[in-house]
Amino acid sequence: MFEAAELGRKVSRDDFDAMAMTLRTELLDLQQRLRSADFPVIIVFAGVDGAGKNETVNLLNEWMDPRWIDTRAYGRPSEEERERPGYWRYWRDLPAKGKIGLFLSSWYHPPLVDRVYGRISVAEMDEQLERVVRFEKTLADEGALILKFWMHLSEKAQKKRLKKLEEDPLTAWQVTETDWKHWKLYNKFAGAAERLIMHTSKSHAMWHIVEGADARYRYTVVLNTVKEAILRHLEAREVAKKVAAEMKKPGKAKAAKPKPLTGQPSILSSLDMTQTLEGADYNRRLQEQRGRLAQLHHRAKEAGVSTVLMFEGWDAAGKGGTIRRLTNAINARDYQVIPIAAPTEEERAQHYMWRFWRHLSRAGRVTIFDRSWYGRVLVERVEGFCSEEAWRRAYGEINDFEEQIVEAGHVLCKFWLHITSEEQLARFTQRGEIEYKKWKLTDEDWRNREKWDVYESAVNDMVEQTSTRIAPWTLVEANSKPFARVKVLTTVCDALEAALKRKKG
Amino acid sequence: MFEAAELGRKVSRDDFDAMAMTLRTELLDLQQRLRSADFPVIIVFAGVDGAGKNETVNLLNEWMDPRWIDTRAYGRPSEEERERPGYWRYWRDLPAKGKIGLFLSSWYHPPLVDRVYGRISVAEMDEQLERVVRFEKTLADEGALILKFWMHLSEKAQKKRLKKLEEDPLTAWQVTETDWKHWKLYNKFAGAAERLIMHTSKSHAMWHIVEGADARYRYTVVLNTVKEAILRHLEAREVAKKVAAEMKKPGKAKAAKPKPLTGQPSILSSLDMTQTLEGADYNRRLQEQRGRLAQLHHRAKEAGVSTVLMFEGWDAAGKGGTIRRLTNAINARDYQVIPIAAPTEEERAQHYMWRFWRHLSRAGRVTIFDRSWYGRVLVERVEGFCSEEAWRRAYGEINDFEEQIVEAGHVLCKFWLHITSEEQLARFTQRGEIEYKKWKLTDEDWRNREKWDVYESAVNDMVEQTSTRIAPWTLVEANSKPFARVKVLTTVCDALEAALKRKKG
Repeated sequence: MFEAAELGRKVSRDDFDAMAMTLRTELLDLQQRLRSADFPVIIVFAGVDGAGKNETVNLLNEWMDPRWIDTRAYGRPSEEERERPGYWRYWRDLPAKGKIGLFLSSWYHPPLVDRVYGRISVAEMDEQLERVVRFEKTLADEGALILKFWMHLSEKAQKKRLKKLEEDPLTAWQVTETDWKHWKLYNKFAGAAERLIMHTSKSHAMWHIVEGADARYRYTVVLNTVKEAILRHLEAREVAKKVAAEMKKPGKAKAAKPKPLTGQPSILSSLDMTQTLEGADYNRRLQEQRGRLAQLHHRAKEAGVSTVLMFEGWDAAGKGGTIRRLTNAINARDYQVIPIAAPTEEERAQHYMWRFWRHLSRAGRVTIFDRSWYGRVLVERVEGFCSEEAWRRAYGEINDFEEQIVEAGHVLCKFWLHITSEEQLARFTQRGEIEYKKWKLTDEDWRNREKWDVYESAVNDMVEQTSTRIAPWTLVEANSKPFARVKVLTTVCDALEAALKRKKG
Repeated sequence: MFEAAELGRKVSRDDFDAMAMTLRTELLDLQQRLRSADFPVIIVFAGVDGAGKNETVNLLNEWMDPRWIDTRAYGRPSEEERERPGYWRYWRDLPAKGKIGLFLSSWYHPPLVDRVYGRISVAEMDEQLERVVRFEKTLADEGALILKFWMHLSEKAQKKRLKKLEEDPLTAWQVTETDWKHWKLYNKFAGAAERLIMHTSKSHAMWHIVEGADARYRYTVVLNTVKEAILRHLEAREVAKKVAAEMKKPGKAKAAKPKPLTGQPSILSSLDMTQTLEGADYNRRLQEQRGRLAQLHHRAKEAGVSTVLMFEGWDAAGKGGTIRRLTNAINARDYQVIPIAAPTEEERAQHYMWRFWRHLSRAGRVTIFDRSWYGRVLVERVEGFCSEEAWRRAYGEINDFEEQIVEAGHVLCKFWLHITSEEQLARFTQRGEIEYKKWKLTDEDWRNREKWDVYESAVNDMVEQTSTRIAPWTLVEANSKPFARVKVLTTVCDALEAALKRKKG
């Protein structure tokens, strides 16, 4: 694999200078075009120590407009980062649409180094690489341009390079003991690197192997590759837009609409909606569970166990009231409620999942999502706000996201608050009649109501595709608000209790 | 995940009969449209025993035109199958373009059952599922429509169903001890099934979970889903064709063509082409290596170790002569030479990789490919016979194919026979002058020669992306035919020796 990067390729100073002027201008122009594009550029640098990763990143920064380019390098995770799922640090650093992000020691670093030092098995390395592949695929599917450069040096060339750096007092500090330690493990590194490249070189995120021995050569290759790739991607996105428009033409979508079988029970219609909880009974059980929650949350906080609660449900199903019954039992500094409405400008400039990742909070805290990442497979699907391709692949993206939350040891509960259509009508009518509740009722609520069946079939698919053993849905019979509140509180308490037991055991 | 498939959904006989007539006609019409389509339809059935997989497949066969539909079910691999990589049996059964293949107990069966019985770990199951994902992706990337139905029954419903089958003398034979054994493992099955579905439900190959308790319901769902999906796919392929045409328009391809850095050494130009081997020396070493090969092959045959040899190289580089020197040392019944020229009609109707899979031969045999699966990243790339997307993803498909060959314990050697441009010119001229060699020289050879640089850069990329530790390229300096022949023979012998040692150890 690396034979082709040990050939002694060189670019002369004259050739380089002749090219540099034009290329710089071209890159700057391209950055301007990129600013209005609907995708970010993600450039990953990895490879052999001393093969010029840093210098290349420096040159890119020097030559391009720094306002539209970010450089990110990763060391040991901070305390903040350790308290979240491992990929949180990468998600929060993703460049916005129109910008370029340069990544050093990125998501490729842990699997590679851990494997070389024997801290993980080959199977575990592969598993980590699969996560990398899913991560990049998720980003590429929403349009991101991903470029990956593997900077290579032969064993001999690396030795020569490290020696040279050491001899110059200006660069000697760059060479650490770790560098020499890695050099001694050269062969192990090369073997693991090959596996890494093979498993993660996909047509949407190919590795470019660059011979790193000659600085001007590697600059020339990287800069030209970046330029060409951005140009091509801009073009490809234009075509993609045309295709999307084509697909939306009337007649097309018609044939494509699968008719759900009518009159069949759905996961929702199978719920026993007569369940209620009244008066003293309700008060007793509510107090009981709130007390339990307060205690359990206290213990979870001590143990550093975070909780993520997520609420979906019909309009007027009582999400707000239920959430308030929960938060009442918890110290205000320990929870945050994230209402998911239209995304902010900053959020629109990022991948769909970005705005959920950003809200994952620190160890021991409770994060409550009032509506959530399921918007894509509910309202966006039903209203046609995203392509079918997009909501179909969202199931996998969601499972992946939730898996990472659970793997990080957090407690995750997902609630669908269900009311019958008749109950919703009654609540809408009541809202319209009570002055201080009128603001809660919008035209949109009435419009959504007309699509009840379509929503119901989307909910059914959602449960089918995303209710898993590690992240099950809890469907809550919410015609009776007291019943719903107690069921939610009890479910949260049970989940916390189980997590604390696991943590201990 | 399975909650939504335990709701007791039913379709009445009247409703079913009313629908049946129209649906049957529609399906038959669709089959006719499909015949001229450029993709196959692959339908996978899996799920709980007794949930109606077989009956559904029977109904599809009954309702549709049997000439364009194949049913495949897999049991224990045959001796023939065990001698090849595991997926060989699936590759050879793939439906041709325009046809429908129904698969029972398919590639999902081993990972699921082996996991339930504890024969593999979770990590190993995941690894096998990743292979499934790559397999389906490879097929979908070339246009295949993949539909997967998971037929579900609750634990209780399964018991009821098995009892009912047992009571009827006509169906009692269907219920085996294994079925009851599986029923006792219901929970383990459900857990493994969930993992399987989560890992392999991709937007290009989604699982449809079907409630299996009521026959008419499951027929209705499956048949309608099949119909809709084929309709939609036919439409999507139309759009894809338009896009491909759009991309080919002049002006587009221009900006997209990356210019290789000129004047740089390539992996080929770095070879020492002055190496020769003359007269007595050549004869001695040739005899030596042929004797060695004869012996080693004999041992390999005894041990059931297969050998796959693959030759690529410039026109007139001497592939034919080299292959003859090899085959001379082996019994004619033990090897086959596969010259790769234009695909046959049958091959064109299949995935690009299909024609290579089909030639993998039985245990202990030698298969020699004269040109190979690398055509896609060489001639097809250079001549624009396939899309850039297609040849870029081919690197991964090739690595995957070769990994499976090596994992199956076969010996794989890949040779690029290199000659200089001057040497090629001399050989062409000579061919033109010698009467009995004239047929070997075509206009195409001259045309290819003009694209030397472009081919060279394609070879360079090929080695970079596909020369791996488990399947390295051997670049052969072939200006001297004797040198090349001996190098090839020696390489094959060394590889055989190493494999036999591993087998023993």
